[in-house]
Amino acid sequence: MPVISLKTPSAAYDITIASGLLRTLSARLNKLTKGKPFRPFIVTSPEIWGLWHKQVLASFKEAPTVLFLPSGEAHKRLASVESLAQQLATAGADRDSLLIAFGGGVIGDVTGFLAAIYMRGIPYVQIPTTLLAQVDSSVGGKTGVNLVAGKNLVGSFNHPLAVLADTDILATLPPAQLRAGLQESIKAGIIRNAKLFKYMEQNADAILKGDAKALTHVVTASVRVKADVVANDERESGLRMILNYGHTIGHAIEAATSYKQLLHGEAVGWGSIAATHLGLSRKLITQAQSDRIIALILRYGPLSSFKATAAKLVALTSSDKKNRSGTLSFILPTSIGTVKIVRDVTQPELLAATESMLALMRQHTAAPVVTRKRKR
Amino acid sequence: MPVISLKTPSAAYDITIASGLLRTLSARLNKLTKGKPFRPFIVTSPEIWGLWHKQVLASFKEAPTVLFLPSGEAHKRLASVESLAQQLATAGADRDSLLIAFGGGVIGDVTGFLAAIYMRGIPYVQIPTTLLAQVDSSVGGKTGVNLVAGKNLVGSFNHPLAVLADTDILATLPPAQLRAGLQESIKAGIIRNAKLFKYMEQNADAILKGDAKALTHVVTASVRVKADVVANDERESGLRMILNYGHTIGHAIEAATSYKQLLHGEAVGWGSIAATHLGLSRKLITQAQSDRIIALILRYGPLSSFKATAAKLVALTSSDKKNRSGTLSFILPTSIGTVKIVRDVTQPELLAATESMLALMRQHTAAPVVTRKRKR
Repeated sequence: MPVISLKTPSAAYDITIASGLLRTLSARLNKLTKGKPFRPFIVTSPEIWGLWHKQVLASFKEAPTVLFLPSGEAHKRLASVESLAQQLATAGADRDSLLIAFGGGVIGDVTGFLAAIYMRGIPYVQIPTTLLAQVDSSVGGKTGVNLVAGKNLVGSFNHPLAVLADTDILATLPPAQLRAGLQESIKAGIIRNAKLFKYMEQNADAILKGDAKALTHVVTASVRVKADVVANDERESGLRMILNYGHTIGHAIEAATSYKQLLHGEAVGWGSIAATHLGLSRKLITQAQSDRIIALILRYGPLSSFKATAAKLVALTSSDKKNRSGTLSFILPTSIGTVKIVRDVTQPELLAATESMLALMRQHTAAPVVTRKRKR
Repeated sequence: MPVISLKTPSAAYDITIASGLLRTLSARLNKLTKGKPFRPFIVTSPEIWGLWHKQVLASFKEAPTVLFLPSGEAHKRLASVESLAQQLATAGADRDSLLIAFGGGVIGDVTGFLAAIYMRGIPYVQIPTTLLAQVDSSVGGKTGVNLVAGKNLVGSFNHPLAVLADTDILATLPPAQLRAGLQESIKAGIIRNAKLFKYMEQNADAILKGDAKALTHVVTASVRVKADVVANDERESGLRMILNYGHTIGHAIEAATSYKQLLHGEAVGWGSIAATHLGLSRKLITQAQSDRIIALILRYGPLSSFKATAAKLVALTSSDKKNRSGTLSFILPTSIGTVKIVRDVTQPELLAATESMLALMRQHTAAPVVTRKRKR
């Protein structure tokens, strides 16, 4: 069973990726808390709980208290955190309680933040239920909620006691969500793991069919990339920025479409294509490398199309949180498996790369996926 | 100029207690940030800003951005934090910004928490403007806001870069606020500094008149007690609990009067008297010590009276945050200058001590001070 240990200056914990973790949850939590009694509180969505409550409850002698957060990015707000905190207090939760984030990225981010601030901090565990959450958002300790002014503008670096990624859950994901989540795995390959990239090229059919062995391999390799980066730069002062590969234009696309038309992974896919065009125009990568990257992103599509001009997208990048200080930082590929941070990208350059990405989109148009937005 | 250095596992900073700090604020901030450019954002109340803006602005070449939080405990809520965060984002605040909490306990707690979570953490400085905030709440890194379910139920341990306590500000405090704040200094004496206690016995007239030298002595000694305790137990796993001396019954009194009738220090004064009665009934202290403690608390009165039965107050103690696990922990005096944590206080014992405190109140009735509640 793949277990990845993540050690940062502020925390050390394991990310376990395997089948059947839910069925043994209670015993796993007891091990984490080293036998010290605790009261478990599960934060989840009605949909996830409807699908998996029997498996979760089976392992507990006494049923944990369950708190619900409705699905969707719209609920990733301080008002939700306050409502959950109030429910915890009313139910008598104290510093001997343990929160369990059981859901996708929104549930994980909100619950991790709730754990950071309830009674000035109580422990929590991540049980990610989407591919995106398993390969990306549940790992690394970034938690938080959105403001009207922007996404993830309030939050906390707060690591869980453990991440338990049960790969059985992936079998129930809608195909579009699986494909979108895999874009973050492609990103992991591009920035730091050429072998993962190649594996995804060679095993695309099996992975996209949801083959358990192939998916577990991809999830594990993706988590390893993220854990390795976070271990080297917990607070995002340098290296961790490379995880934002494809995200600058990706976030602009999400903002331009009001976070409703594309899944997060799809926006990242388009953003990665734009970044690849930038890398090619600067001759940081070869034409052949650029072709392979773009081909793999499209192979795990179709990515939903959207309507926005290049000018609009470029304008939106300057309001991105990472770019507030005025300079435009970009993560650009230097090969398959390596990237560099470039701080002098000009507006015309960025405009040209975005235009190329939009031209490619017009050739590969897919119908928009109408579904709630998933967060990264 | 008294400078107290506080070092905890997570932070190290100075608490400076002196006259004229506001007038040199800009230079002091530059020193703290080691010359690195930063954008200052001041969070304050309209009243405080009205009194002191000229002094503050005088030292800045470029005026800092000022955000207002209305006065009063009612605004110590997540909604205020969200509104301030939104204003920060709109004004372009980023990780190179510096928050300045300029006000009493509520401003300090809200701003410290805002600094903890805005963009997952930006630096801040405390400039406490009440005696209570100078001697107690600005020191130690506890920040947070209230829920409907209880006070300070969400928050963060988040230390400032520095605490600048300008003693000039104390001269403008209403006498009732000065007296109430001094109850926390008496508490500091009881729990850990017999010399401070004696100084307050011997110099009561000068201190209560607002004599600058005497007040500076009291503030400095009180901060030293708090800093020493916090340095030894940052996260309140043991020793730090002694700072709650007088607070269990104190919080019950505040809850019974809807946080509107008494200043926090007054409630703590009554709570200290009840705790002293408990200590006496357990023979932890002598009659003479008990008499001295009660006499000093009353000397710094009059403490506003209130209407609540002993039974009601005792019932409210069990919903106190510190007592959620079911046992009643109390900090009881074992001499003037030492206390111990007692975990087996029975309801009848507590009821008797509370009755004694209420009997004493009936003998020393003062008219209720009608004013907004100050927080500890």
